[in-house]
Amino acid sequence: MTYTIGVDLGGTNIAAAVVRVKDAHIISKLSVPTPVADGQDAIAEAITLLVADLTKTSGIASSEIARIGIGIPGTVSHRDKTVIYACNLPFEQGYPIAYKVEQATGITTSILNDADAAAYGEYVVDETHPTPFIAITLGTGVGSGVIMDGKVVSGFNGAGGELGHTTLIMGGQECGCKRRGCWEAYASASALVRQTEEAIRQHPDSLLAHLAEKTGTINGKLPFDAAELGCSVAQKVLEQYRMYVAEGLANVVNIFQPEKIVIGGGISNQGESFVGPVREYVYQHEYNRYLSKTKIETAQLSNDAGIIGAALYAE
Amino acid sequence: MTYTIGVDLGGTNIAAAVVRVKDAHIISKLSVPTPVADGQDAIAEAITLLVADLTKTSGIASSEIARIGIGIPGTVSHRDKTVIYACNLPFEQGYPIAYKVEQATGITTSILNDADAAAYGEYVVDETHPTPFIAITLGTGVGSGVIMDGKVVSGFNGAGGELGHTTLIMGGQECGCKRRGCWEAYASASALVRQTEEAIRQHPDSLLAHLAEKTGTINGKLPFDAAELGCSVAQKVLEQYRMYVAEGLANVVNIFQPEKIVIGGGISNQGESFVGPVREYVYQHEYNRYLSKTKIETAQLSNDAGIIGAALYAE
Repeated sequence: MTYTIGVDLGGTNIAAAVVRVKDAHIISKLSVPTPVADGQDAIAEAITLLVADLTKTSGIASSEIARIGIGIPGTVSHRDKTVIYACNLPFEQGYPIAYKVEQATGITTSILNDADAAAYGEYVVDETHPTPFIAITLGTGVGSGVIMDGKVVSGFNGAGGELGHTTLIMGGQECGCKRRGCWEAYASASALVRQTEEAIRQHPDSLLAHLAEKTGTINGKLPFDAAELGCSVAQKVLEQYRMYVAEGLANVVNIFQPEKIVIGGGISNQGESFVGPVREYVYQHEYNRYLSKTKIETAQLSNDAGIIGAALYAE
Repeated sequence: MTYTIGVDLGGTNIAAAVVRVKDAHIISKLSVPTPVADGQDAIAEAITLLVADLTKTSGIASSEIARIGIGIPGTVSHRDKTVIYACNLPFEQGYPIAYKVEQATGITTSILNDADAAAYGEYVVDETHPTPFIAITLGTGVGSGVIMDGKVVSGFNGAGGELGHTTLIMGGQECGCKRRGCWEAYASASALVRQTEEAIRQHPDSLLAHLAEKTGTINGKLPFDAAELGCSVAQKVLEQYRMYVAEGLANVVNIFQPEKIVIGGGISNQGESFVGPVREYVYQHEYNRYLSKTKIETAQLSNDAGIIGAALYAE
């Protein structure tokens, strides 16, 4: 039996698990806070400790772990096993995190971008192995990973596959990447929150506004709850938001004609009531009118996609 | 010595050539009008006649022609060798054009999309074989072809790689694909003509307007000529147009991080004076700030790219 360890390195927590390769099954999972303030070596050490703890809790000796894969929220060099840039973590450009973990654990370690890891995880658990396969995550940003013939597509320098950073409205809303008008700036969960806040300001007497006041928070779920209660303001916010998501997906379809797209992140918890109208819009607006259509569905794995993808893409 | 025949089937003319495989050299080239009014079988017959004529003029017997490749302006099924949709040609959906030519000539025949053929042609003559490699043609539309590891990327159904049909301004200018705001609607040569016409209407006393009146035509070259003569109205038109082109290219870079992009079509005749500022804009606005940059250059082959690509991609 072959096992690998997948690590999902986040700005807040590091989650890791022992994964059984043959069926992508998680045997044992642990999580610790990311020691961001203690610097890059502390992060490598925290991962090393987590690996040691995992071999204990899982009862699988480190000699049985074939390899370790680390998903990193930023640009990485998969080939050189170094971090190029990760805006929420204290890594110097070129920090050899995989070698640090490899030296300390004695287990071959590789790294890849976290969105690519999540996409690969979703790909692996889809038994039909669709190709091209694309995973889109509607979260703080619009994450994306493209898998073609079983391989992550990230360009000649490893920084590609940034579908969230393509224009929806040139010169529009400022984006975290410093450009204006990116898809991410309209279709992320954060963007939905901003759109909801704006609607509340404009309609302080709406059911949406009252619900926000009652619950004390404005999050990506609020407009869905208000819309379900019949609030027309919330329904309008969501209609516009679905259009933002769908216009970007139509771009993705026109570019790749993927066999399948899965949508993950908190928003995807709304399931078919969200994805259904989005799919319909994409089918009406995409370039291809005569050939088979891209399957568009919600993601399967939720938070474990990144761990499983990192574990199984490791080389 | 191996030879193949490449056919570039256009809405106006059919051009075809005998190509020497080892160095992508055109031995002999011929062209005839496309018999659009005579229907789909007449087009297949015209290609067959052209192939026969080519073997005569080139002095290379048809037994020495390893295969024929046809580039078609529309959606094709490369696998089934049928035309799915070509808006400027009288093909029924599923018309087996490659089999018709194959039966009549006795030479194995394949088809692919014309923009993909052109991209493959440009790829083949680039001795460094960059990957991913992308060719963008700024012509009547914005054509595009993506080559990854030597293969055309066109998705699970063959209709992908339509980079011109991704949004630049959601809900904006109407596009030929019936969607609004596509890159093509802002960055094609036709769009530049429209932008120039609009500027002439707004500034009837400009040098640009006078030049248009003098020459009697408004084409994609006019604003470049007027700008060179110091016309500030033309310079503004081009500044905006370059931004449209560059914003779309920044999207392409963020998605694929191609090793190289080449720009073809009439506009690319402006050379480095056009491509230089475009490249600069892309480098300033793309997502990757730390890794190697995509090479962005003018295309090498001009009108022969499609013939050479179709000839050499033939299987």
